[in-house]
Amino acid sequence: MHRTKIKVVADALDANNTIAQANRADFDRHGVAVVNLMSAPGAGKTRLLERALADLDGVRAGVLEGDVAGSFDADRLSLLHLPVVQLNTGAGFGGECHLDANMVRSAIPSLPLADIDLLVIENVGNLVCPAEFRVGEDARIMVCSVTEGEDKPLKYPLMFRACELVVINKIDLLPHLDVDVDRLLANLDAVNPGAARMLVSARTGEGVDAFAAWLAEVPSRVGAAA
Amino acid sequence: MHRTKIKVVADALDANNTIAQANRADFDRHGVAVVNLMSAPGAGKTRLLERALADLDGVRAGVLEGDVAGSFDADRLSLLHLPVVQLNTGAGFGGECHLDANMVRSAIPSLPLADIDLLVIENVGNLVCPAEFRVGEDARIMVCSVTEGEDKPLKYPLMFRACELVVINKIDLLPHLDVDVDRLLANLDAVNPGAARMLVSARTGEGVDAFAAWLAEVPSRVGAAA
Repeated sequence: MHRTKIKVVADALDANNTIAQANRADFDRHGVAVVNLMSAPGAGKTRLLERALADLDGVRAGVLEGDVAGSFDADRLSLLHLPVVQLNTGAGFGGECHLDANMVRSAIPSLPLADIDLLVIENVGNLVCPAEFRVGEDARIMVCSVTEGEDKPLKYPLMFRACELVVINKIDLLPHLDVDVDRLLANLDAVNPGAARMLVSARTGEGVDAFAAWLAEVPSRVGAAA
Repeated sequence: MHRTKIKVVADALDANNTIAQANRADFDRHGVAVVNLMSAPGAGKTRLLERALADLDGVRAGVLEGDVAGSFDADRLSLLHLPVVQLNTGAGFGGECHLDANMVRSAIPSLPLADIDLLVIENVGNLVCPAEFRVGEDARIMVCSVTEGEDKPLKYPLMFRACELVVINKIDLLPHLDVDVDRLLANLDAVNPGAARMLVSARTGEGVDAFAAWLAEVPSRVGAAA
């Protein structure tokens, strides 16, 4: 007996991934590498960007700022004289707790893709849902503040697994905390052994050079070229 | 001309509120007051409870722990010899980023309602969605760590508006931060002028007595009585 061979179309029903691929195609057409930057609220994403984006070794960066409400971070970053676009998720009741591909798609016409090599998308502060939505990025980075405690990789494993780079921030506060950074890193290894990691203080600047260098290499690493 | 008077059934389509009311009825039947405790990840909810629940002035407390994965906080609180029930939201991909009324409802048969006066529901660490879902609580409290910065009330206004009490935690770190706690409180006033607030350090114990007293008064304040 012959059976018709059934073709399985993977992801056919996942509208988010379909739109993320459309975003990706737009980014590729302009040779723009894209980083999705995630963290809990107040982990220091914006301060880290304030420091790192100031000198990216010739790489032209732009920022897409995701927030429930307001443009507080975008206002801060605009002082760097980079293109910054604000995306607010707060149209619904309470607002969306993450960016998805369609929200990013709505911002693409406002982004000067022809003039940048690297787009950093600063996601809404949240350790759960942002990890579930691809937006067309090349790399995912999360910032974890040591003040949040050692247990976060075990409590939010998807987020820590989703990222290629985990930036441990606020290490200047370690002398004042009961937090063992080795245990934090061991917990990261338990959920994502291959993740790159770096220890930084966006406040003092310690380690920020290494983070800036990692960011500056994303375009050549992913083969983006205008 | 006569018109038929149309009866408006408020919230008729809101399944969450319907279930929250059923939870509320169960809590009332047992004379249990309920607090919904929310914060960003790592703001110190569990540590605050470890300290405050140890001496609640005769009020018998229980805890419902909400987490995406694991039972790390429940394990810590179980050392207090209080009834602690773990509720994990991680059944789906990545897990839910908040508790809703139906999740709490599923835990009610596991809660010893006849033996407690106060149930503290420790929500998933997140400043967005938990504020959107009533679970049948009497009071909502949020914990905001000073390490998260001054701007959080402006960036997550719904959460700060939803709460009767805002606990500003980790004040022992203020000498080591560039954070102006008066500005943080002014930002809270901008979105929720009537909110009670207290400054605490769950680490050193400063201010925890006042928080414990506030918690211990919830049952009599809401008229709960077994």
